[in-house]
Amino acid sequence: MIETPYLLFLGDAPDPLAAKVAQGIKDWRPENCVGQFRMEGCKADMKLPDMTLAEAKAAGAKTLVIGVANRGGKISASWKEVLLDALDQDFDLASGLHNLLRNETDLSEKAAATGRTLHDVRVPAVEYPIANGEKRRGKRVLAIGTDCSIGKMYTALALDRDMRAAGMKSTFRATGQTGILITGEGVPLDAVIADFMAGSIEWLTPDNDEDHWDVIEGQGSLYHVSFSGVTLALIHGGQPDALILCHEPTRTHMRGLPGYGLPALEDLRDLGLQMAKIANPDCQVVGISVNTAALSDAEAEAYLEEVSARMGLPAVDPYRHGTQPLIAALQAL
Amino acid sequence: MIETPYLLFLGDAPDPLAAKVAQGIKDWRPENCVGQFRMEGCKADMKLPDMTLAEAKAAGAKTLVIGVANRGGKISASWKEVLLDALDQDFDLASGLHNLLRNETDLSEKAAATGRTLHDVRVPAVEYPIANGEKRRGKRVLAIGTDCSIGKMYTALALDRDMRAAGMKSTFRATGQTGILITGEGVPLDAVIADFMAGSIEWLTPDNDEDHWDVIEGQGSLYHVSFSGVTLALIHGGQPDALILCHEPTRTHMRGLPGYGLPALEDLRDLGLQMAKIANPDCQVVGISVNTAALSDAEAEAYLEEVSARMGLPAVDPYRHGTQPLIAALQAL
Repeated sequence: MIETPYLLFLGDAPDPLAAKVAQGIKDWRPENCVGQFRMEGCKADMKLPDMTLAEAKAAGAKTLVIGVANRGGKISASWKEVLLDALDQDFDLASGLHNLLRNETDLSEKAAATGRTLHDVRVPAVEYPIANGEKRRGKRVLAIGTDCSIGKMYTALALDRDMRAAGMKSTFRATGQTGILITGEGVPLDAVIADFMAGSIEWLTPDNDEDHWDVIEGQGSLYHVSFSGVTLALIHGGQPDALILCHEPTRTHMRGLPGYGLPALEDLRDLGLQMAKIANPDCQVVGISVNTAALSDAEAEAYLEEVSARMGLPAVDPYRHGTQPLIAALQAL
Repeated sequence: MIETPYLLFLGDAPDPLAAKVAQGIKDWRPENCVGQFRMEGCKADMKLPDMTLAEAKAAGAKTLVIGVANRGGKISASWKEVLLDALDQDFDLASGLHNLLRNETDLSEKAAATGRTLHDVRVPAVEYPIANGEKRRGKRVLAIGTDCSIGKMYTALALDRDMRAAGMKSTFRATGQTGILITGEGVPLDAVIADFMAGSIEWLTPDNDEDHWDVIEGQGSLYHVSFSGVTLALIHGGQPDALILCHEPTRTHMRGLPGYGLPALEDLRDLGLQMAKIANPDCQVVGISVNTAALSDAEAEAYLEEVSARMGLPAVDPYRHGTQPLIAALQAL
């Protein structure tokens, strides 16, 4: 578990997109952010107070989170100075970079000397069990997609936000690096050893109050041959009571697989439900979440209406319209 | 790749079952075994010549393979003496034990000093790629099961043996520890990092002659919630042209999951084929392999006849009857 609140490190981000991890944290957990730390030439701005390390410390920040993707996969010398300073000023560090903080000798030596923690969220920090398939108390909802990178995390975070706003008991359960940095905990599922994938998700979504919802972040797609095994482990480890189908209507082929077309939403519904019922025979598909960013308002409305009528399920774009129809469907279960 | 031929180390096996890895190597690759090494009190016997290390070396052995499961997960002091001796006498060591050879300081120091290799086949030795889904040349057949530990490896090894005997081009592709020790190479799929599972199977079954068959060792089951993700990665990474369904008719629940019943063979056929067609639309289910060990000859015959008639597919127990009907179905593809 990463200690909050955070100071968001934006470094020398060459453009706003490079800081999308920081943006995610700011958008979904603003209460976890006391400020931002920007270096010379930084082109990203979270609209948070710019702070020195000392100012952030005084404001209560516990962890400096690297919210920016580095160039060429290296942790640059100019970043190093700030990171070493932060350790000296009693910050923990957290990062989702491919290059691990712990593999930088100067950082690991400084962390050892100062007693601070380096959180590399790409690396599992727990020895997960093998899944036992036992039924847990409480409710779980999982977003599955016709493809990867299609809005599953966004859908889950929006659902969790809106459910809590509606007075429901809900916890977003992160299964990827960005999700883990947003919430401070979770399972980096794509880095888990094969035999322990489903067990890691059982561990992540334990027994809970009967009226509590775990909103589990989806990964991959049953139809994406590179990552489908990860998706199935998530379905069988998560034992969802409810599935939400995620789709992007203008995509022409599976992400990174030019020869592979996307499945129809009907196919995803049938296959996803069949798979989910192996672990939880009561599972239901409750709704559809569509990323309509590429459509005009009118096109989006028309598309959602058509899909909803065709499939007999509520269909929304959470970014445009919120998640109310999905939440109503969950409450009706 | 583990150098052959082997000297099989049976240690102080308390019973024949403890030496089942050695038995598998002896049964399927007798040409790889120059002899066996047994210690005081060993209750297993591969019917191979008992040899000292020096005798085995003189007979050409390159690797001492630990073919016995150790007690309590520890590599005992009495084993150590033999293993250290073997390194001194220019043997490599190979092991599928949970406790890694490389983590034993005396063994790793001796291996470094003598220039020998310690093969821990539980640990991937390769950085596998992420699967790209591209079609490879050559044919692939995969056994999938209604449950784990239901005869998939046996079926694949028997198929490979019988195909080669029939003059076909065939390679058994190991995906588990025992299979790897039997053939000297393969992918320890259950130990691969989630993101690289399907890619490891693409790597294992590369482009080949159009009339060459990779006979891929199955793992887990789409219906076993602990390991289903591993199975799906195998299906999507392997791009099988043919599936063989494996079943054990007397099993009452999924292995290790008392609350979970087995699927019908029809369910496995439909779900397995649907999944396989995502990666290879031409895939077909060609036959059924049944482990009838718990049935009498007459019961087995009757069961296989009934299943074959019901499903319109050849059904055999490879142990009792060989795999000819399955091979004929593969040749007819």
